[in-house]
Amino acid sequence: MSTHRVYLDHAAATPVAPEVLAAMQPFFGELFYNPSATYQAARSVARTLQDARARVAAILGSRANEVVFTAGGSEANNLAVHGAMRPLSGKNVVVSAIEHDSVLEAARRYDVRVVPVDKRGIVDLAALDKLIDDDTALVSIMYANNEIGTIQPIRDISQIIQRKRSERSKGGLPLLFHTDAAQASNYLDLHVARLGVDMMTLNGGKIYGPKQSGCLFVKAGVILQPIVDGGGQEMGLRSGTENVAAAVGFAEALELAVTIRHDEVERLQGLQRRLIDGTLRAYPSARLNGTRNKRLPNNVHVTFPGIDNERLLIQLDELGIMAAAGSACSASDDEPSHVLGALGLSDEQARSSVRMTLGRTTTEQDVDYVMTVLAKLLA
Amino acid sequence: MSTHRVYLDHAAATPVAPEVLAAMQPFFGELFYNPSATYQAARSVARTLQDARARVAAILGSRANEVVFTAGGSEANNLAVHGAMRPLSGKNVVVSAIEHDSVLEAARRYDVRVVPVDKRGIVDLAALDKLIDDDTALVSIMYANNEIGTIQPIRDISQIIQRKRSERSKGGLPLLFHTDAAQASNYLDLHVARLGVDMMTLNGGKIYGPKQSGCLFVKAGVILQPIVDGGGQEMGLRSGTENVAAAVGFAEALELAVTIRHDEVERLQGLQRRLIDGTLRAYPSARLNGTRNKRLPNNVHVTFPGIDNERLLIQLDELGIMAAAGSACSASDDEPSHVLGALGLSDEQARSSVRMTLGRTTTEQDVDYVMTVLAKLLA
Repeated sequence: MSTHRVYLDHAAATPVAPEVLAAMQPFFGELFYNPSATYQAARSVARTLQDARARVAAILGSRANEVVFTAGGSEANNLAVHGAMRPLSGKNVVVSAIEHDSVLEAARRYDVRVVPVDKRGIVDLAALDKLIDDDTALVSIMYANNEIGTIQPIRDISQIIQRKRSERSKGGLPLLFHTDAAQASNYLDLHVARLGVDMMTLNGGKIYGPKQSGCLFVKAGVILQPIVDGGGQEMGLRSGTENVAAAVGFAEALELAVTIRHDEVERLQGLQRRLIDGTLRAYPSARLNGTRNKRLPNNVHVTFPGIDNERLLIQLDELGIMAAAGSACSASDDEPSHVLGALGLSDEQARSSVRMTLGRTTTEQDVDYVMTVLAKLLA
Repeated sequence: MSTHRVYLDHAAATPVAPEVLAAMQPFFGELFYNPSATYQAARSVARTLQDARARVAAILGSRANEVVFTAGGSEANNLAVHGAMRPLSGKNVVVSAIEHDSVLEAARRYDVRVVPVDKRGIVDLAALDKLIDDDTALVSIMYANNEIGTIQPIRDISQIIQRKRSERSKGGLPLLFHTDAAQASNYLDLHVARLGVDMMTLNGGKIYGPKQSGCLFVKAGVILQPIVDGGGQEMGLRSGTENVAAAVGFAEALELAVTIRHDEVERLQGLQRRLIDGTLRAYPSARLNGTRNKRLPNNVHVTFPGIDNERLLIQLDELGIMAAAGSACSASDDEPSHVLGALGLSDEQARSSVRMTLGRTTTEQDVDYVMTVLAKLLA
């Protein structure tokens, strides 16, 4: 048993940053009031909630009331897909083949069209162009992938959608563009106008905020069916007494991520290079999945031909290294990853693949330790 | 300005109990792992989550996998109503006229039949009997009302439903019985078999647990459509990385509520009597809404003819007393309460009504202070 512990599963979960937790604490205790109540103490909590909304909006470049707080990223994705599609009939939704399960499974309840990706995991724009027709109500393509870290050309996709929109007759079906930015939000530009999106999912649990916090950006004028009916909180889209602690924690976490983003991206890219190169050296037939340059700075995803990933992960765990076979979000079932399948990997290749995702506390020493252990285990 | 502060809105929100918050803390920090991950540290968190489920189940007298953790009571109510009704067509749902908005608004998306209540707020059982037909898929009737505190005869309703069920042909439409126990859970028996329910909503935010925590009890064999599609967490009904802190906090809060329940009910009934009697003395034409004996021990709801409740609430607030006009869940709109309307109160009577809900920290001194202030303001 090792005393060195290295957590390399930041795509699955991040700890709540100390300053985030500190910002949340008052709302469990002294400021526990229901923001919809009318006495001054409750109104003050309502102002803090609205302030959290404005803080998130400032980062997105949106208005405060375009930020709908949700209980996590999966819920936000479901609000986007079901919210747009449920009121319609005979319309279709276009998604990429490598979306998160919370987009894919929601979309499968409707007429869904799946855009393929190339072997790097980049969406095929020509195919996307062809798949969108006059009955397409929604396109949902993730900003960056949770398994292989590939970053999609969101601005290019948005331009295709704008062209399609302009070709539609006036007063016709609106064509909405949603992106799941759950994995992107630590590292990439989140300005919704620059990205050209109508809806965007953010997930607090992946950015050192609390789990089941997050939001869906919903551009003014976009009409959705609520995901939770009731008292009408969150602009009528997500009823229920607001989780002010989570909203404040999420806003705090997002601000912190954006503040350190520039330096953190650079730092992680250095560590990432070191880990990729070291890993490929340690096992010469190893292959990096995804792409080198359009990749989140914290993601390393490698296939080790001939190696059983489950066994390798157990061995790594015994030596203090926590990594993943794929998305933790569906780790409870044993099916090979749909993402790796979409890249053209065989089931056998998928079962020889390991994801290592770095984070805020990852050091060069950690990376060197991982490379030493990997070299030993793979020898 | 008074230095005496009395919080009388425990039906709207409760602070997180210190022991509950203490139980939650590790899951923000050192135990932040995604319960679906495979390394030992994450598996240990998954065991704690399963343990929280078992702790809740022990109180309900159910199996652990019949407890679906949700992000709050409104979500649980939506999962019950939409989960049961959405996959069907041409079927109906029966609800009482005084349900919480999260049941009513969800039910309104389907063929909904509304059972009236008598002037005390008790469901008309004969009317219920008549409304249920062979196309009724779901009956949802709350355990205790959030505005007037009236407790429904859940066991009697369950017997009606069992009889209706036995009259249906074999293999016909299942008839499900759901109860929203959000307000009941601090004070009443929660044993699902004794109650005879198929689904039951609990809300952590009303029992000194965290906001947007809670669960839906879903009896084995009941088939629902998920409220959040995705990775398949929570028995496939509520996808998304589990909020372990909230689940553990909710379990802790529920256990605490049940442990002190007997004494707390007795203590609050004494305070409640004192407050009701004092209030009626202070304003002789005042009228207690609901019923004296089938009432939650913490609820006092009074109409003061000729008094504008908004003005009274502001005056009370200035003197340190926080009370409510009705449900905080829809406090943001100005419509008169549908609950008071269902009791036969006029809009004017509704606008002269005040809800005071006691809680764990309410003392006799608080009640006496409130009575003194009320006597002065109403004079």
